[in-house]
Amino acid sequence: MMKNIEDCTIGIAGLGLMGGAIAMALRGNVRRILAYDIDGAVLTAAREDAVIDRGFAHPQDMLALCDVVFLCLNPSTILAFLDAWMPFFEPGTLLTDIAGVKTPIVRAMETKLRPDLDFVPGHPMAGSEKGGYAQARCCSFTGKNYILTPLKRTKPESVDFIRNIVYRMGFSRITETTAEDHDRKIAFTSQLCHVIAAALIDCEPDGAIASFGGGSFEDLTRIAMLNAPQWTELFLENKHELLRRIAQFEGSLDALKTLIETERTDELQAYLQTVRERRARMT
Amino acid sequence: MMKNIEDCTIGIAGLGLMGGAIAMALRGNVRRILAYDIDGAVLTAAREDAVIDRGFAHPQDMLALCDVVFLCLNPSTILAFLDAWMPFFEPGTLLTDIAGVKTPIVRAMETKLRPDLDFVPGHPMAGSEKGGYAQARCCSFTGKNYILTPLKRTKPESVDFIRNIVYRMGFSRITETTAEDHDRKIAFTSQLCHVIAAALIDCEPDGAIASFGGGSFEDLTRIAMLNAPQWTELFLENKHELLRRIAQFEGSLDALKTLIETERTDELQAYLQTVRERRARMT
Repeated sequence: MMKNIEDCTIGIAGLGLMGGAIAMALRGNVRRILAYDIDGAVLTAAREDAVIDRGFAHPQDMLALCDVVFLCLNPSTILAFLDAWMPFFEPGTLLTDIAGVKTPIVRAMETKLRPDLDFVPGHPMAGSEKGGYAQARCCSFTGKNYILTPLKRTKPESVDFIRNIVYRMGFSRITETTAEDHDRKIAFTSQLCHVIAAALIDCEPDGAIASFGGGSFEDLTRIAMLNAPQWTELFLENKHELLRRIAQFEGSLDALKTLIETERTDELQAYLQTVRERRARMT
Repeated sequence: MMKNIEDCTIGIAGLGLMGGAIAMALRGNVRRILAYDIDGAVLTAAREDAVIDRGFAHPQDMLALCDVVFLCLNPSTILAFLDAWMPFFEPGTLLTDIAGVKTPIVRAMETKLRPDLDFVPGHPMAGSEKGGYAQARCCSFTGKNYILTPLKRTKPESVDFIRNIVYRMGFSRITETTAEDHDRKIAFTSQLCHVIAAALIDCEPDGAIASFGGGSFEDLTRIAMLNAPQWTELFLENKHELLRRIAQFEGSLDALKTLIETERTDELQAYLQTVRERRARMT
């Protein structure tokens, strides 16, 4: 039997951009917000900002006090964190994470999660090219998407509980699906888009090109200001799906290129019209 | 000897999204704003909105009254318009246009422009995926880029005059260059970006994918809601440069794909880091 959200102590492991933004969004909705981070200065700043009630330099001290724990670490760090600290969660603790690739963590947790804990893997679709706790207040959740990918053993009431917390944070559309479906779709909406933005910048060495920008260039390349180590991880963790999406995109690009090359005006216009209508329906 | 801007009668040929937005931006800065459009309802609406002083169904009636004429027609229509109405401009009229591809119009006008007129070809970098006069007020010019590509014979004082008008409209960075240089750079910042956005939507038939969007997908594909006939024209008019840019982009994408495929983690991270820094300098 879960407590009410208002009575919960929430622990945040990793107080970066997303961990910080989650703490800010939950502030006033829960009993207490605790945080663990390897960077003591971040914990001090968050205490001074009254974003958290207490900071912890050692995970086990925090885990002993939490009803719900948000794992807001880099994808590669989450599994190591869970391996190291699994014995220290209080019985009945509800875990959730925010990793951008779900299959590795879901597969691992299907077998490794302690039977007396529950876990609702999640992915808030509200990142930013700016990283770190200091940028967290720029990260708005209002009206954004959130994906939940429960384990086979995740209790429905645990999913409902996290769903309610997510709504309180301001997200407006929550989708529940499998980790595999998430990773297939995210390979398109997120990773392929980052690959394209990076390739666009890679192919233009002229720093003065921005004088010729009219919005399209800026929109398509803003996310090229990505966190390189984090996105390297995300690309490689979802390598199979991402490569499949790149190949699909290359096929569509090639078809469009051929229409331009051969000046098949009517077909080109029909291609663009179809795309326009399809995109307009994607809301 | 040019008049002061405040004393000028400005004629706008084509009161669509850009023509309408230019009229709105110039309102109060000039003596009178006249407009010609084939759509009488648009002229009536603009009169009622007090965006123009008078609408004209026949170009020659308007051209007889103008000091400066903004040609805000589709690229393919501008040259036909100039061919048909060249005799009707008042001696000394200053012409400018807003076509997104400059070489065809600049080449034609180098020989065809009446000797007693002057022409400052231009390109306001402030479009929108929404078209038409009704959307014009959504089209802000504040802080945007503007490109001017004078003819060999364009008088420096004519360039200065248009430059001042452009600043009054709210644009903040005006770049003067050749039509060829404009078309090379615009092929990258604008046309390639539209090609990529269109190909991205073409390769994803799932209309429900938007539930998995977190900003990147939305940013990269907003411009896929393009005006299909207009962009068909723009792609084909700048075909040579655009195809060169597509090929460069495909090369960069392929290099990135190979790094992911072969899991060359360090090189992948270095590629992304270089891109991040290059993009951050592009302002």
